[in-house]
Amino acid sequence: MNILVTGGAGFIGSHLADALLATGHHVTALDDLSCGRASNIAHLRAHPRFQFIRLDVCDEKGLCDVFARDSFATVFHMAANSDIQAGPRQLNLDLNRTFLTTFAVLRCMKQHGTASLVFASTSAVYGEMEGPMREDAGPLFPISFYGAAKLASEAFISAWVANCGIQAWILRFPNVVGERSTHGVVHDFINRLTADPKRLTILGDGRQCKPYLYVKDLIDGMLFVWQGAKDRLNYFNLGVNSDTTVRRIAEIVVEKMRLSNVEFSFTGGDRGWTGDVPRFKYELSKVHQLGWQARRTSDEAIRLAVQAELTYRGGQT
Amino acid sequence: MNILVTGGAGFIGSHLADALLATGHHVTALDDLSCGRASNIAHLRAHPRFQFIRLDVCDEKGLCDVFARDSFATVFHMAANSDIQAGPRQLNLDLNRTFLTTFAVLRCMKQHGTASLVFASTSAVYGEMEGPMREDAGPLFPISFYGAAKLASEAFISAWVANCGIQAWILRFPNVVGERSTHGVVHDFINRLTADPKRLTILGDGRQCKPYLYVKDLIDGMLFVWQGAKDRLNYFNLGVNSDTTVRRIAEIVVEKMRLSNVEFSFTGGDRGWTGDVPRFKYELSKVHQLGWQARRTSDEAIRLAVQAELTYRGGQT
Repeated sequence: MNILVTGGAGFIGSHLADALLATGHHVTALDDLSCGRASNIAHLRAHPRFQFIRLDVCDEKGLCDVFARDSFATVFHMAANSDIQAGPRQLNLDLNRTFLTTFAVLRCMKQHGTASLVFASTSAVYGEMEGPMREDAGPLFPISFYGAAKLASEAFISAWVANCGIQAWILRFPNVVGERSTHGVVHDFINRLTADPKRLTILGDGRQCKPYLYVKDLIDGMLFVWQGAKDRLNYFNLGVNSDTTVRRIAEIVVEKMRLSNVEFSFTGGDRGWTGDVPRFKYELSKVHQLGWQARRTSDEAIRLAVQAELTYRGGQT
Repeated sequence: MNILVTGGAGFIGSHLADALLATGHHVTALDDLSCGRASNIAHLRAHPRFQFIRLDVCDEKGLCDVFARDSFATVFHMAANSDIQAGPRQLNLDLNRTFLTTFAVLRCMKQHGTASLVFASTSAVYGEMEGPMREDAGPLFPISFYGAAKLASEAFISAWVANCGIQAWILRFPNVVGERSTHGVVHDFINRLTADPKRLTILGDGRQCKPYLYVKDLIDGMLFVWQGAKDRLNYFNLGVNSDTTVRRIAEIVVEKMRLSNVEFSFTGGDRGWTGDVPRFKYELSKVHQLGWQARRTSDEAIRLAVQAELTYRGGQT
C-alpha cells in the first residue's frame, strides 16, 4: 500500500515509517525537520520503498503537489507541534502546526481522492477529566493549546468523514517515550543531572502520575487498530494500564545514570506547568476488546526510554 | 459595562445588542454584513450608547485596533458563518468565519486584557448523539463543518481559560427562530410556497424533529446565564423542552400564509441534507437548575417566526 506519513522524521513518525516498511508498504515521509530530525530516518534513505520530502505540511500548495505526484491509499497524519509547553508562549504554534496541518491534509485528501486517514490524537483532548477517560466521555475541555488543536482536528476529521466519504482512525496517545524522543520529563531530568549530578529540581510535588507508553508498543497498537477497526469513524485510546510518578522517573534516571546521593527538591504545587494534566487514568477496555494490549508496563517504558536517551547521548559525544 | 458584540448586525447579535442596550450597557457591534444586515441595527444608529463598525472579524489587525480604541469588559462572540449547508461546498467557510474569528477574538482579548467572553456555541458540537445531549456528554463528533468549527472554538476557549486567565461562558444554542432570521426551514417553505402555492417539497421524510427556540427567549437565557453562572469556564445548553417536526412547520407556514389544499411531497430519507442532525433532544436540567426556562414552546416559536418573516416580506414589497 502506498502510504503518506506526515511528521515522518519525527519521534513517533519515524518509528511508524520503520514499521510500515517492515510490513511491505511504500512510505513517503514528509517533515519540515522543525521537530523531527534527519538522523531519525538516515537509515531509511536507501530503502527502495521509502522516500523523504522536506516540506512544511502547512504549505498546502506543496502538500497538494505531493498528493498529485503519488496516489496514496492512506495518510498517517503525525505532524504537530510536539513541544506542548511552548504553546502559551507562542499562541499560533499549535494553531498552525497542530491544527492547520490537519486541515491542509484533509483538503488535499479530498482534492486527490485519498480515502483514509489515521490521526495521532492525544489524551490532552480530555482536559482535566474527573474519573477514567473513556473514549465516549465528556465534556471535552482541554487545558493546553496542544490539546485544543488536537480536539479541533478531531472535530474537522469527524465532519470530513460525514461529508466527504473518508474513513478515519482517531488514536488518542498518552505520554509516549522511547528512542528518538526529543522532549519531556526524561530529557529534562537527564539534562539537569548532567549539569549538576548532586541535585535534581522536580517540577510540582513529584506525585504527578501518568501512564507512559513505549513507542514501539504504540506503533504496534496503531497498526493493530488501523487493521482491525472497521467503522467509518474509529476512535480509540491507546495506552497502558500501569503508570509512573514523576518521582519514580527521577529515581530511574538517577539509577540508570549510576548516580548516588542525589538531592531531590520540588517546586511544589500539583502540576509541572499550567496546561499540564497532573494525573490521568485511561479507560482502555475498547482497545483491549479489539484484541490489543501494550507489552511493556509504564515503568518498563521509562527504563527503556532512559537507556535509549543515555545511549543516544553517548553516541553523540 | 462596555461590551463588544461580534456579528452584531446578525440575526441573533442584533437582538443581543437591543437587550444589552436596554439594560444600560454600552455596545460596540462589529459585522462585515456578509450574513448580517444593516437594517437589523438601523434603529440603533442614533442610540447614544451604541456604535457600529463594519469589519471582518478575521481581520485581526482591524480587530485589534477596535480593542485598542475601547476598553471592553466583555466580548459576546456571535460572528460565524450561519449558512450551515454551505459548509461542504466551501471547505474554508467555517474554518475562516466560524473558527478563525474565534481565534482572532481570543488573541485580541489577551493582547488588550479583556477578561471575559460569552461564546455562541451550538447543539451541532454533539453530532448525532445517542441519548439526550447533556453538557457533559461525549463523544463529540460533529457531522457538519459548522459544528466542527464551533467545537474547535470551544476547545481553544477552554485552553485560553486555563492558560490566559479569562472567564468564559459557552452557550450551546439549538435551532433559533424569529425576527431578522435569514436562513432555515421557515424561509425555505415560505420561498417555495410563494413560488408555487399549490405544492410544497419537503426535504427528508418530514419527521425530522427538533426544538426551536424563539430568539428573544434565547437572548433572555444568554443574559441570565452570563449573570448567574460564576465558574471560570461555564457551559450550558440553551433550549426549550418541546419540539416541532418539519411537517408541523410546513402546516404552520401554510396556515399563516392562508393557503389551502397544498400538496406536500417529501424527498425521502431521514434527513434534509448531509450534515443535518435529523432529531435531537437537549438535556436542559443544568440551565433549569440555574433558574432559567424558555417562555415559548417550540411550536409557538415557529408561529412567531413565520409571522415575523411574512410581516418582514410584506414590508419589503
